[in-house]
Amino acid sequence: MMGPTDQGASYRLTSPTAMPKASAFLWNRRMMISLTCRGFATAQFMQPEPAKYAHAPNLEAKTFMQPENPYYAHHPGRFVYVRDDAAGDIYSIPHEPVRRPWDDFAFIAGQSEVSWRLGQPGLAFEWVLSLSEDDLVELWTLKVRNTGTEARALSLYPYFPVGYMSWMNQSGQYHPELAAIICSSVTPYQKVEDYFKNKDFKDKTCLIAEIAPDAFEVRQEAFEGEGGLMHPDALREEHLGCNDARYETPVCAMQYRLTLTPGEERSYRFLFGPAFDEAEVAALRERYFSQDGFSQATDAYRHYVASGRGSLRIETPDAALDNFVNHWLDRQVFYHGDVNRLSTDPQTRNYLQDNMGMVYLQPQKARAAFLKALSQQHRAGEMPDGILLHPGAELKYINQIPHYDQNVWLPVCLSAYLDETGDRAILDERLPYGDSDQQATVLAKINQAMAWLEQNVDERGLSYIAQGDWCDPMNMVGYKGKGVSIWLTLASAYAMKLWADICEGHGEPELAAHHRTVAERFNDAANRHGWDGHWYGRGISDNGQAFGVASDEEGRIFLNPQSWAMLSGAASPEQQQSLMAAVTEQLETPYGVAMLAPAYTRMHEHIGRVTQKHPGSAENGSVYNHASAFYVYALYEAGLADKGYTLLRQMLPCDDTALARGQLPVFIPNYYRGAYRQFPRTAGRSSQLFNTGTIHWFYRCLIDGLFGLKGDGDALRVTPKLPAHWQSAKVTRRFRGAELEVEMRREPGVSAITLELDGKAVAGQRLTGLEPGRRYQLRVRLPEASA
Amino acid sequence: MMGPTDQGASYRLTSPTAMPKASAFLWNRRMMISLTCRGFATAQFMQPEPAKYAHAPNLEAKTFMQPENPYYAHHPGRFVYVRDDAAGDIYSIPHEPVRRPWDDFAFIAGQSEVSWRLGQPGLAFEWVLSLSEDDLVELWTLKVRNTGTEARALSLYPYFPVGYMSWMNQSGQYHPELAAIICSSVTPYQKVEDYFKNKDFKDKTCLIAEIAPDAFEVRQEAFEGEGGLMHPDALREEHLGCNDARYETPVCAMQYRLTLTPGEERSYRFLFGPAFDEAEVAALRERYFSQDGFSQATDAYRHYVASGRGSLRIETPDAALDNFVNHWLDRQVFYHGDVNRLSTDPQTRNYLQDNMGMVYLQPQKARAAFLKALSQQHRAGEMPDGILLHPGAELKYINQIPHYDQNVWLPVCLSAYLDETGDRAILDERLPYGDSDQQATVLAKINQAMAWLEQNVDERGLSYIAQGDWCDPMNMVGYKGKGVSIWLTLASAYAMKLWADICEGHGEPELAAHHRTVAERFNDAANRHGWDGHWYGRGISDNGQAFGVASDEEGRIFLNPQSWAMLSGAASPEQQQSLMAAVTEQLETPYGVAMLAPAYTRMHEHIGRVTQKHPGSAENGSVYNHASAFYVYALYEAGLADKGYTLLRQMLPCDDTALARGQLPVFIPNYYRGAYRQFPRTAGRSSQLFNTGTIHWFYRCLIDGLFGLKGDGDALRVTPKLPAHWQSAKVTRRFRGAELEVEMRREPGVSAITLELDGKAVAGQRLTGLEPGRRYQLRVRLPEASA
Repeated sequence: MMGPTDQGASYRLTSPTAMPKASAFLWNRRMMISLTCRGFATAQFMQPEPAKYAHAPNLEAKTFMQPENPYYAHHPGRFVYVRDDAAGDIYSIPHEPVRRPWDDFAFIAGQSEVSWRLGQPGLAFEWVLSLSEDDLVELWTLKVRNTGTEARALSLYPYFPVGYMSWMNQSGQYHPELAAIICSSVTPYQKVEDYFKNKDFKDKTCLIAEIAPDAFEVRQEAFEGEGGLMHPDALREEHLGCNDARYETPVCAMQYRLTLTPGEERSYRFLFGPAFDEAEVAALRERYFSQDGFSQATDAYRHYVASGRGSLRIETPDAALDNFVNHWLDRQVFYHGDVNRLSTDPQTRNYLQDNMGMVYLQPQKARAAFLKALSQQHRAGEMPDGILLHPGAELKYINQIPHYDQNVWLPVCLSAYLDETGDRAILDERLPYGDSDQQATVLAKINQAMAWLEQNVDERGLSYIAQGDWCDPMNMVGYKGKGVSIWLTLASAYAMKLWADICEGHGEPELAAHHRTVAERFNDAANRHGWDGHWYGRGISDNGQAFGVASDEEGRIFLNPQSWAMLSGAASPEQQQSLMAAVTEQLETPYGVAMLAPAYTRMHEHIGRVTQKHPGSAENGSVYNHASAFYVYALYEAGLADKGYTLLRQMLPCDDTALARGQLPVFIPNYYRGAYRQFPRTAGRSSQLFNTGTIHWFYRCLIDGLFGLKGDGDALRVTPKLPAHWQSAKVTRRFRGAELEVEMRREPGVSAITLELDGKAVAGQRLTGLEPGRRYQLRVRLPEASA
Repeated sequence: MMGPTDQGASYRLTSPTAMPKASAFLWNRRMMISLTCRGFATAQFMQPEPAKYAHAPNLEAKTFMQPENPYYAHHPGRFVYVRDDAAGDIYSIPHEPVRRPWDDFAFIAGQSEVSWRLGQPGLAFEWVLSLSEDDLVELWTLKVRNTGTEARALSLYPYFPVGYMSWMNQSGQYHPELAAIICSSVTPYQKVEDYFKNKDFKDKTCLIAEIAPDAFEVRQEAFEGEGGLMHPDALREEHLGCNDARYETPVCAMQYRLTLTPGEERSYRFLFGPAFDEAEVAALRERYFSQDGFSQATDAYRHYVASGRGSLRIETPDAALDNFVNHWLDRQVFYHGDVNRLSTDPQTRNYLQDNMGMVYLQPQKARAAFLKALSQQHRAGEMPDGILLHPGAELKYINQIPHYDQNVWLPVCLSAYLDETGDRAILDERLPYGDSDQQATVLAKINQAMAWLEQNVDERGLSYIAQGDWCDPMNMVGYKGKGVSIWLTLASAYAMKLWADICEGHGEPELAAHHRTVAERFNDAANRHGWDGHWYGRGISDNGQAFGVASDEEGRIFLNPQSWAMLSGAASPEQQQSLMAAVTEQLETPYGVAMLAPAYTRMHEHIGRVTQKHPGSAENGSVYNHASAFYVYALYEAGLADKGYTLLRQMLPCDDTALARGQLPVFIPNYYRGAYRQFPRTAGRSSQLFNTGTIHWFYRCLIDGLFGLKGDGDALRVTPKLPAHWQSAKVTRRFRGAELEVEMRREPGVSAITLELDGKAVAGQRLTGLEPGRRYQLRVRLPEASA
């Protein structure tokens, strides 16, 4: 039903009903489109805030990209109705809206295009989407071929619903000189100041055809009639009605009548997207439909996606992992790092982590992002809750709510950058503040950030949580200014230790010593007040109520404090054993490790309101892959290669449970539905949402953990942690301009890891003196796994 | 296809396709529901801001009630699927979602219930909605009867879609002990301060059945399957699947299996609405399904609607007008005056006018409203842009935008109140200000309001428009503080004159004289700078650009300045002839008088941005009935009885063009689509929106104009203006507690109006000394119409 094609560079799904919500996405720096296998689409573009050009049929709320997006018959999508003009049969490409099964169906999620291949006796179709690198336009190709022995008379009807564009002004018309349907809307009633912000909006939506259609329909109501989307009235007529839409819901529908002789193939191309005016539509037509504009654009887009090539290629006993890492991992990291999830004010922790992943792809971009973020630090040391990417951007709802963990991510993300690049010069860069023109070096600024964390504690030395830390739903446990976060206390300790190491490496031993002392203080406080006997609690609320502890009925254990207690060194070996046992018992599921359990099913007012998210969804008891990745990273750091590998693999939607998750293995979703013990029916379901910090930690789990090929000062440290059942693995690792072809192999009689570079034995596990532009052969001999 | 039933107390439509958007509405003080003949529904309730309990299938934007609401297959509605268990045939009540035609179809819009009667050979159905007077609950009754000669095995499936309740937490379950499906949601991620505002929200939606169903379905996806709403998969099975919904779009669907012998009838009752918790659902069940709770509630609701009885019953040669006035006019006025369009911050001009209509129904309510509004006046004299009805209410978007006409409505509305009640004591009431505890009398306050208008003019004496006056789309012509409104200048003159009369009647001749002088000054300024040769212009923008003038290509003439120039006395008889000719030529259409023409088709930046509304819609060139009513009122004031009647009747959707308007004659919509000369296809289409100030002016056109039975100081003044082709009319007029049975008749030889009260001739046209509680017979003899 599903499998890789072309050596994994694309994935193919052969049924539209088995995984009806399976989806794939394409993006460029200004837009994004997610398509389900049935043809529904969710697209956004930036102007500069996220906007839409294909709308729901009712007035939509503006929102960020939703997980588990609900679909319904009139959801926006990109379709082609097909009518056999002789028999009168009606189908639709790819599956919606008619839902009549094709004999052959394939949904193919590629790197830089998404396509369908469909067949009926005697007919074959291809329906392909690519994007351009820079324009706000979808590039569609429809191919039809007569694979039979008789001539076929067909009508093809590209059908692009546009939906309810505006409650004040929407209309649509066919423009014969452009072979385009242009639907217009106007931003509704607005204040003067909004008007000047909005007046350049691309409020039009256009469908431009390379070949002028034989007929068209612009009025949704006229298209559907009483037959509805499954049997549109318009298709009962010889020709579409050629109507316009005047303050009526518009649609872009066209009709091509053709007769295909046996073996004959035809191809049609379309552009769909937003536009400011007719002149822009004309310019798009000119650019893409004269000479080779269209194919040049799809080529350029392919190169754009390929330019997000990362530092790792692998060949292991695990083909699915190989496929994911070699074809999809970089792509998802690149999406995050290059476009920041299509927001103008990314949350600081997201922005820093999304650029942590870019360290392995385009470290210069990561560097620039870290500097941009730090230049918005407050003079008092605290990072803002969101980073403004444009001069006119504003911190929106969630970023107006104080979360106290933002500073932690500075050393966490910077350490990955320094490991990968060795670029310690970044520490001496001088930057302003968000609220002051005064300048300071990155070193000084992060010292300030660490000092802020150090001081932002209660009398017990526990970190205040305010209205949230990493976990949004905990937004009401500390709003009175007393509640504390055990996780944040541990994360602060870990951040301090990382920072101490960086200071040390930068010739600042006193700073290092200071931060190590502070880290121990945080760890001590967490152990004294946060250790609940068998695991670490999550926090203590304004009311003095500990939560995430054994006495809780719901939310009894949270994953994050356990992971970060391992990373920070707070947990002794005995504590580590104990907390891991608790995680196994209470959080592990066939679909991964849940973020907390049991999921909250109601508000817990006595603690402070704890979560309003649905049990098992998002951060309330889901298998939240971002948190899972922290845990896996901690397991690897603790040297637990087998456990690490097992849980790492669960994040990937390419094993036996893939079907249950409803997810193609082309990206790791932000979560799989959790609450496995409470609501087993829905557990494991994929969010289908590709926005997630998971992917960057997944990268680090591979680099620092599984393959152990991590930068360390001026060297590459080699510390593989292959699972016991792997005898060998090949890795191509790009590192600071050099390329290493690494072969790792367990060999009898090897008692400790030994390295051989270009045939020469290397002492220890650090490779120094690697030169940019050179290619190295590295043999890594590993001990055999103990039985 | 359509006609009155029961002497006009309800209207019947017998085809679901001829007028697919024909709708009717019910309301109580806390909720409102509008139903189309096909079963789609739009409902809102107050908590205290408008909220929903049945949602679209995607995340909806919050908005005020929309005109020309677009419907689509998954739009919320109230339906019953019907399956013939023997034949397998599927229908749906009332028409959607299956859309299979019934042999008999009737949609019956009643005063206090909306119902359908449907028939197939051998089967008859009734589907009836009423509301309760106080609760947030829909009361549904389903009746089925076997009208054939064979037993029939049926499944009935009440199907109430609930839609996408919340993007963070939605679920649904059947509760057997309550025979109810309860769908739950939680208000999504929110700031601390919002949480405490939102925590008591009724975030649940319930369907409660009197009789426990045989099966149920709560998961929308499981109900539909691949068959979709037209052929739901769930109906192919013997029984519904009895599933719950967990972070899945919920639905309230139930199944009843029954066998009906010939002649047998069954009845099922349901409650649908929002609830806070299960306890509230249980309480609703107890209240409505034990003893006679259900029928007592529908009775009480009938009485509530009937309590909005007004001051006029008529019997004229115009049966359609009689029907509307005797059955629907009061109801629509009452809806506005009693619930303020379900808002918490009604625009000041709406609030005052909605209560102007209440003057004829419940003058005490109108009085209280005028005092409430005035007590929010700013100390500087200006009325705020919206009136806050609750302590926690806030002025929302549009009411944060300065509109400079709010003061005008004080004397305009108060004069109707004083005419109807003679209650001059209101002028001596002492009230605080919105921004000060200082108190002043109503008289003093309105003097201040008039002084504010007097001073808020430019060097030419023209009234500044700021970001708008009565007409919202003109929001950008004066934002720089220079633009002026000719309409507002004329309206200020009219307000001054009305106020002068009130002062005069209150023994303040000097005030009266002053305000008459100011009125003349306004009129002079309008004539000097606003008269465009053949009609009055609309205004002069910040840039000094006159608009609404002959040199304009679009927006060349506006109706309002013409109407108010007639009312204010600015227009000389010659000017009146000229401007009426211009209105006839440019604004009159078969569907009424357009508010401006030609409609704007684009922004006019050189003027100031003029309108973003669609040409022909809402205020951009529509037949905006509110403006039409001003004009009709002005025509009557000018003594133009025939013209007044002709245009008055065009507002009513009960003539030959009713079909084109798509509107049942149970309310006057806020507009009929205009731009008749530009876009004839859509002209005349009804907005289907029953929120409109039109209705109050329609009342005044009848009281002050057509029937001329208007209060005047301590008297009732009798000045009928029957159209020439009416020989007679009977009117029952309630006036200050008395009731007059009036018979008007043209008689040969009568040269001027003569009155006979209880058989005695009355000198002049003023009836004084009418006593509350008494019933009078009034004969009015009128001259014959000149040929």
